Amino acid sequence: MLTLSQKAIELPASPIRKLVPYADAAKKRGVKVFHLNIGQPDIDSPKCVMDAIHNINLNNLAYTNSAGLESYRKGLAKYYNNLNIDVDYKDIIVTTSGSEAVMFAMITICNPGDEVIVMEPFYTNYRAFAIQYGVNLVPISTKIDNGFAVPPIEEFEKYITPRTKAILLCNPGNPTGTLYSKASMEKLGEIVKKNEIYLLSDEVYREFCYSDAPHFSAMQIKGIEQNVLLLDSVSKRYSMCGARIGCIVSKNKDVIAAILKLGQARLCSPVIDQMAAEAALDAPADYFAEVKAEYIHRRDVMVEMLNNIPGVFTPKPMGAFYTIARLPVEDAEDFAKWMLEKFEYNGETTMVAPAAGFYATQGSGKNEVRLAYVLKVEDIKHAIKCLEEGLKAYPGTIK
Amino acid sequence: MLTLSQKAIELPASPIRKLVPYADAAKKRGVKVFHLNIGQPDIDSPKCVMDAIHNINLNNLAYTNSAGLESYRKGLAKYYNNLNIDVDYKDIIVTTSGSEAVMFAMITICNPGDEVIVMEPFYTNYRAFAIQYGVNLVPISTKIDNGFAVPPIEEFEKYITPRTKAILLCNPGNPTGTLYSKASMEKLGEIVKKNEIYLLSDEVYREFCYSDAPHFSAMQIKGIEQNVLLLDSVSKRYSMCGARIGCIVSKNKDVIAAILKLGQARLCSPVIDQMAAEAALDAPADYFAEVKAEYIHRRDVMVEMLNNIPGVFTPKPMGAFYTIARLPVEDAEDFAKWMLEKFEYNGETTMVAPAAGFYATQGSGKNEVRLAYVLKVEDIKHAIKCLEEGLKAYPGTIK
Repeated sequence: MLTLSQKAIELPASPIRKLVPYADAAKKRGVKVFHLNIGQPDIDSPKCVMDAIHNINLNNLAYTNSAGLESYRKGLAKYYNNLNIDVDYKDIIVTTSGSEAVMFAMITICNPGDEVIVMEPFYTNYRAFAIQYGVNLVPISTKIDNGFAVPPIEEFEKYITPRTKAILLCNPGNPTGTLYSKASMEKLGEIVKKNEIYLLSDEVYREFCYSDAPHFSAMQIKGIEQNVLLLDSVSKRYSMCGARIGCIVSKNKDVIAAILKLGQARLCSPVIDQMAAEAALDAPADYFAEVKAEYIHRRDVMVEMLNNIPGVFTPKPMGAFYTIARLPVEDAEDFAKWMLEKFEYNGETTMVAPAAGFYATQGSGKNEVRLAYVLKVEDIKHAIKCLEEGLKAYPGTIK
Repeated sequence: MLTLSQKAIELPASPIRKLVPYADAAKKRGVKVFHLNIGQPDIDSPKCVMDAIHNINLNNLAYTNSAGLESYRKGLAKYYNNLNIDVDYKDIIVTTSGSEAVMFAMITICNPGDEVIVMEPFYTNYRAFAIQYGVNLVPISTKIDNGFAVPPIEEFEKYITPRTKAILLCNPGNPTGTLYSKASMEKLGEIVKKNEIYLLSDEVYREFCYSDAPHFSAMQIKGIEQNVLLLDSVSKRYSMCGARIGCIVSKNKDVIAAILKLGQARLCSPVIDQMAAEAALDAPADYFAEVKAEYIHRRDVMVEMLNNIPGVFTPKPMGAFYTIARLPVEDAEDFAKWMLEKFEYNGETTMVAPAAGFYATQGSGKNEVRLAYVLKVEDIKHAIKCLEEGLKAYPGTIK
């Protein structure tokens, strides 16, 4: 009988994307939809990126090296060196998006049935990748009421079993904005070393830290160089989500050799996008300062407006560009769908991502949503106003 | 203990790519290397493709729909309709390369331990994808001595077990150039229907058929519309290997829905490359006529020169742009490595892909190599001359 595989059946529809057809239908009705559901910034890519694309001088889009363009890998090594991360270009494999970096890391270190510890709520697609490789994500819960603070690092050790292969961090955190301090990272390093497991560190939001302390990378933890895989992407850093260029960095030569074989199997990452990502390395220093100031402003506006809505609470995220908000509803997914299907306010509505899909623990986050502060302040004001009016009108709002 | 997963350990290094470091070393010594190891044509992409890239009018490289740009999917549907393949754009999911199309298809229909029947020799990376998902490739052997002819289609049924989920074809075939006739395809359709399995049809070389009969797509087989997944790519068609844009086409809505979830998990395919692939649809009609004539010429020169070398035999491939040649050596991989490490002729040498990695049957193809006729005739002449002189000088040549 024609059937689908168990994994295909189990795979959740992404909460970031599953309501897109409702948004499309709203747009067809003439309603303007503010997309707070996805980390798609409206900020321009650095001008040097678009210039590089316009000046591409090729007659033929050819395969590149499976590890990535050597010139780009060398440029990336310099980028990391400038952040006091000691790597050589041979420690870097370019991947086709940060997603591929996570997938390559999981399959390289995990057998089916192995476990990876992750703080929840976590980036929802980690789950989709884990399911594809039969990996079990073991969540350590964090709570909205204390701003999703990192639990005492000693806690992490309680979750380690003989099947644990890695701890997977996102720092700064998507969807919570949580930052790991240098002290936390070093304590985590001790646990990783003692238990001989890997540390997978997703640092794609590195440039967007809003505390005074500088970002501390997993690659900077002394003594666990063989255990760390840094997972990275240009999507957020340079507002280049559509380029699909990421990378894996590790000093562990066995890991890099295994990942290169995965890279060879899919031949290479897209060439123009690699060239564009290489050009992005020349973005002027004030690009990040400006972008960061803009995100802080957007965050402040969004957080304040959200907390002024009766029954809504959101903590103040300290990194990345998302916040999780608790809404006065039972089922945030139903509300999110209703906002697109049934509601408009002055011809506008707002799309948010139901947060339940960012938790592994069944039932967690059902009354929460993730909002990305990636739109200009004027749009954020309209979007949150729609949310406020929507909550007034939604039949399921708990008054 | 820090270890790698079993799959990472089992994953073979791609025979197309594993000798690249030796080629790089040869180039550093100043030797010119002719790359017959990889299907990387030196033919220009259509001018409209490069024009589209130069005229990209975006300030920000943003995510696209996870199913692909709607305008591109609509353009693709028209392309297929013009080939008498009846599809709607909703039957199409754009993938990040043909490789991703194969991977998405496997994980969507196969549980670990399931079997996929494939004619060997087959495109080597099918194996790397199968290993990642725990799928067993079951080979039906074809032989160089009768030009890798398709075995009687009834044979296929003998390989079907309760674990068989699909037959995977490559038509025209990489690495053999084998074509499936309309009659063969229709018989295969009966087997697929009777046994309720899927037919995965990799047709990325569709435009490069050198017989008089038109290409017959698996999508054109009547009565198995729910069973067919067409796997496609722009890499070869438009000499756009570095764009990494492919697609999956199926009339089976459950399959398309499951693949869309995989697509959502990795967000989208690269946007500029999708726009470039969309522009390629406007390539002038004579683009293919010219390219095809050029490949036929290259094939004829390569095949004749190869068969004039003592002890070498290659059949005449009828499609795609590869040929498998039997060499008078015991271990073609050792010879291929030696050609890069120890040999040069007038400052030149040739890189070929050892063919053993294109077989699933242990020991098969050990004295064969795959050669791609993707270089201009002048280069092919030099490359095959190098091979001839190399075989004279190689200590392992059987005289």
